[in-house]
Amino acid sequence: MASYHKPDEKTLQGLKDAANKLRIHSIKATCASNSGHPTSCCSAAEIMSVLFFQTMRYKATDPRNPCNDRFVLSKGHAAPILYAAWAEAGFVKESELLNLRKFDSDLEGHPTPKLAFVDVATGSLGQGLSAACGMAYTGKYFDKSSYRVYCLMGDGECSEGSVWEAMAFASFYKLDNLVAIMDVNRLGQSDPAPLQHNVDVYLKRCEAFGWNTYVVDGHNVEELCKAFWSAKQFKGQPTCIVAKTFKGKGLKGIEDEMNWHGKPIPKDKVDGILNDLQAQIKDPHKTLSPELPNEDAPPPDSSPILLSSPPEYKKGQKMATRRAYGVALAKLGNSSTKVVALDGDTKNSTFSETFMKSFPDRYIECFIAEQNMVGIAIGCACRDRTVAFASTFATFLSRAYDQIRMGAISQSNVNLVGSHCGVSIGEDGPSQMALEDLAMFRAIPTCTVFYPSDAVATERAVELAANTKGICFIRTSRPDTAVIYSGDEKFEIGVAKVVRQSKSDLVTVIGAGVTLHEALAAADMLESEGKNIRVIDPFTIKPLDAATILANARATGGQIITVEDHYKEGGLGEAVLSAVGQERDIVVTRLAVTSVPRSGKPQELLDLYGISAKQIANTVRQKFAN
Amino acid sequence: MASYHKPDEKTLQGLKDAANKLRIHSIKATCASNSGHPTSCCSAAEIMSVLFFQTMRYKATDPRNPCNDRFVLSKGHAAPILYAAWAEAGFVKESELLNLRKFDSDLEGHPTPKLAFVDVATGSLGQGLSAACGMAYTGKYFDKSSYRVYCLMGDGECSEGSVWEAMAFASFYKLDNLVAIMDVNRLGQSDPAPLQHNVDVYLKRCEAFGWNTYVVDGHNVEELCKAFWSAKQFKGQPTCIVAKTFKGKGLKGIEDEMNWHGKPIPKDKVDGILNDLQAQIKDPHKTLSPELPNEDAPPPDSSPILLSSPPEYKKGQKMATRRAYGVALAKLGNSSTKVVALDGDTKNSTFSETFMKSFPDRYIECFIAEQNMVGIAIGCACRDRTVAFASTFATFLSRAYDQIRMGAISQSNVNLVGSHCGVSIGEDGPSQMALEDLAMFRAIPTCTVFYPSDAVATERAVELAANTKGICFIRTSRPDTAVIYSGDEKFEIGVAKVVRQSKSDLVTVIGAGVTLHEALAAADMLESEGKNIRVIDPFTIKPLDAATILANARATGGQIITVEDHYKEGGLGEAVLSAVGQERDIVVTRLAVTSVPRSGKPQELLDLYGISAKQIANTVRQKFAN
Repeated sequence: MASYHKPDEKTLQGLKDAANKLRIHSIKATCASNSGHPTSCCSAAEIMSVLFFQTMRYKATDPRNPCNDRFVLSKGHAAPILYAAWAEAGFVKESELLNLRKFDSDLEGHPTPKLAFVDVATGSLGQGLSAACGMAYTGKYFDKSSYRVYCLMGDGECSEGSVWEAMAFASFYKLDNLVAIMDVNRLGQSDPAPLQHNVDVYLKRCEAFGWNTYVVDGHNVEELCKAFWSAKQFKGQPTCIVAKTFKGKGLKGIEDEMNWHGKPIPKDKVDGILNDLQAQIKDPHKTLSPELPNEDAPPPDSSPILLSSPPEYKKGQKMATRRAYGVALAKLGNSSTKVVALDGDTKNSTFSETFMKSFPDRYIECFIAEQNMVGIAIGCACRDRTVAFASTFATFLSRAYDQIRMGAISQSNVNLVGSHCGVSIGEDGPSQMALEDLAMFRAIPTCTVFYPSDAVATERAVELAANTKGICFIRTSRPDTAVIYSGDEKFEIGVAKVVRQSKSDLVTVIGAGVTLHEALAAADMLESEGKNIRVIDPFTIKPLDAATILANARATGGQIITVEDHYKEGGLGEAVLSAVGQERDIVVTRLAVTSVPRSGKPQELLDLYGISAKQIANTVRQKFAN
Repeated sequence: MASYHKPDEKTLQGLKDAANKLRIHSIKATCASNSGHPTSCCSAAEIMSVLFFQTMRYKATDPRNPCNDRFVLSKGHAAPILYAAWAEAGFVKESELLNLRKFDSDLEGHPTPKLAFVDVATGSLGQGLSAACGMAYTGKYFDKSSYRVYCLMGDGECSEGSVWEAMAFASFYKLDNLVAIMDVNRLGQSDPAPLQHNVDVYLKRCEAFGWNTYVVDGHNVEELCKAFWSAKQFKGQPTCIVAKTFKGKGLKGIEDEMNWHGKPIPKDKVDGILNDLQAQIKDPHKTLSPELPNEDAPPPDSSPILLSSPPEYKKGQKMATRRAYGVALAKLGNSSTKVVALDGDTKNSTFSETFMKSFPDRYIECFIAEQNMVGIAIGCACRDRTVAFASTFATFLSRAYDQIRMGAISQSNVNLVGSHCGVSIGEDGPSQMALEDLAMFRAIPTCTVFYPSDAVATERAVELAANTKGICFIRTSRPDTAVIYSGDEKFEIGVAKVVRQSKSDLVTVIGAGVTLHEALAAADMLESEGKNIRVIDPFTIKPLDAATILANARATGGQIITVEDHYKEGGLGEAVLSAVGQERDIVVTRLAVTSVPRSGKPQELLDLYGISAKQIANTVRQKFAN
């Protein structure tokens, strides 16, 4: 093992100077914006200085270079010091720092990837480490590159369970290219953090979760240099540096005091404080520059990824869409090594195991920790390193809704796949039924929502998702349903299919997944009574093919019936209402689940909740009695 | 300290017999339903036997008695053994067990409070301990009663971060009336759990999180008796019993084998297995009965809770609705000791601190752990022990969406309050802006969604929420806005207010919160141009007052404009579309946020995203050019 060489005095002084420069920038910027979190910046000043100018290897002119070390500021409210560090590194103009939080500046209140040096948006606490784990896993196992990943966390956010999901993940997968730093500055927003300055308890928790851990004085640049150096040497475990710090360190009358969270320094104090800090700086020039990275990460590759073979099913064949998901993902895996899959111990239900069996090295078992799974997937997909698909029961993605929301702000291209939607799962009961997932994903602004109704459509949805920017969600179903499309059917995002029509249709019925099949069965029943209905498969719920829906609604007397295995709010029905809301002369009748459902057989439940073929047929009969 | 007396041999044999009876019931029930998780039941058989017949004190004929010890089956898929335990205790008919998962039985696939012996629904893993913590906190600090709380967890679910949020909470608050049991049966659904049988690692983690911890052989009734007894004596810390068990224990050829998760015992094996188990039972009779509880919990009290004084504001006074929330909650606190508040270190932003300052003993600081906070609140509200209000930034409630979803299945009456909604928070940027919360809460079937637009309406919303069954969500806003209602204005759920009208209104504009005020400002602008608009405040978004909206829309040429500080999907606009979707001749134009927003000043952002007074006025001008 290499032995540690203490940096020379000039370097150490340079690091101290840099820390105070970062403090000064943070204070000035938050004064200029009259909002922000300077005290949360100041506790991290030495950590940031040692990270950016002594530890990390990166090209300061090319922050998104695939070979660079990664940095995630999980305590995103300390954004001003991140911006200051990149100003000291030369990438951001110093003058721009004073535009913090302004309408026309990308230096927002919390970091987002509008800035080239930000991979994931932060600001919802406790999420950074999961993303960092995803990057570290990718670096170690997929890119097989020497870049390292650093994640700076606050102590307050360590109350978030997602942090401990990530802690368990990182040690399980031996991510020794990952370093977490806990900035234990003792004080939260409205109270001291629960463990205050009990760094020994943090140490015990980190060790119990399998991490190599060092406790340091977080304001001592030499201790920090040594800890980061030691972390680089340590093999087989991730390293956590528990840094005891003081909130507002260096700010007289403010340091270690409550009630300074998220407050700029008042005008009557700021000059004195800036003078104090300035006086400690020995050399005002930039004396430090980062080490460059090894050039050993694969170059970016954004070529399209296609199914290695077209869907091969016979019309009428019974095949659950969740099962087709696995088939499609394995085909994508054949076509590109960039495709990776993640699951939360449901792979034999979601059928991500079909991919795993072919590509075990590109499958990440995330165990029962959905928040972390989504965070890992987002981390894996950063800088287009991988095309990541993460799956679990759709309703358990509700566990990760905050991560998904932040994923949109992060401009992530992650693909999420939820199986076991709706009451049609049957006996397991309501806790396992996704009935809010469409509402959830439709309200994600960058999200494309696929709801394929047969195996062919599912394979094409998976292929499209792999090549679509933004978050993609694919909703799959548990029951076996008939294949209705031929293998060469073309699918496009935002293009619906009219799957049944006649010249005398009374109404346009829109269903998806199991309810499309119920609608088709209802059409058969009604046809024998001389009543024809038109049936539409929307394929994507967002964007929804408003033109096709409008044209067909007009052709059927302005009458639409929607039928969905989802609650009535926020799903297919409301998507259709949105599409036709500006039209007079169109009315929409909606069949959906309207109360907490119960256990039972799938068909019993479809019937009870009014979304079966029989109930669709009854609705049509009532509306068109003669 | 009392010394431990080992139970006599007859009792120990009775406990062993009971364990095997529970196994037999679990196997028979899952065979009858042809689905379910018998192997997950069998690992817990001795734990359940010792809990129900040697440890817990309860009235078996009155499962919801306030004095009873509480039991939470966090590993909800082991439901059959819970039902079996209550059959052995005499509350459930043995014959009913065979109706497991059937359409007409309340013995559902996972437990729900349709059953009197279930307080919270489980089945989404990792949530039970938070609810149990809420019950234990309530027992210790509010009820000041001697009932104890037991929570049985699986090892797989210990990967969920919410478990560790709850672990930290329980030790911080010294919940020595709480016992968690980890059923470490090694095997998950599709893989071994990450820690397999490394019970020492579980021990270290529990100790690091501040728990008194025992490792036991989970199939040894004597060890279990002693551990539960020791837990009762232990003061100042919660106790965790790490029980090393085997999945499918006692089932030949199945015990400790993979691929038996969620599978009933096959027909060719079941008779042999049942015979094996039966042969181990020494006494087929029920020889054990639980100890009765101390009668020291306060009786239930469901009297209405009213504001201690009416809202006292002057019309035109500026007051943020978030601030009025704190005032109202303190007034409710004056009226009833049942009212309690929780927050996640945002109390000085949500203004729950106004309550805390008056009633520090009824405020629970949950720190930055929103999943656990919601779980705690649900636990506190069980059996109507308290009326709980939990608050944080509305967007961080997305962190707890799975808990909220399960709360609905749990028939919880918890009240959730989310501040800082929408782009109108300004500089902090998108990570802090709730723009999906209405979509999220509307898709909760038991949920009432309040969106008060001034301080008076807010106080009444809080009062109504305290007395309304089901989950209530109150959306509050950051900016100061004018009081528009007098203090004696009456508010009802599902009743909108027409806040501005004339005889010549061109259009009905519906806004809420800040956008109601923007709509009123737009009305002023337009009036000077000779264009009148009608303005409606919906007060509740769910239920929405369809009748008032329809009547006014008809009176304004069928023209509606909705304007909301929320994404376009699932919020106010779609709620209005839902209300009018069956009507011809009504068109709805929707103004909403349609992309990930940015930092800036509130008014700049309202303008940029098209929901300011100016943009509303422009929309009206465009639609009604002449």
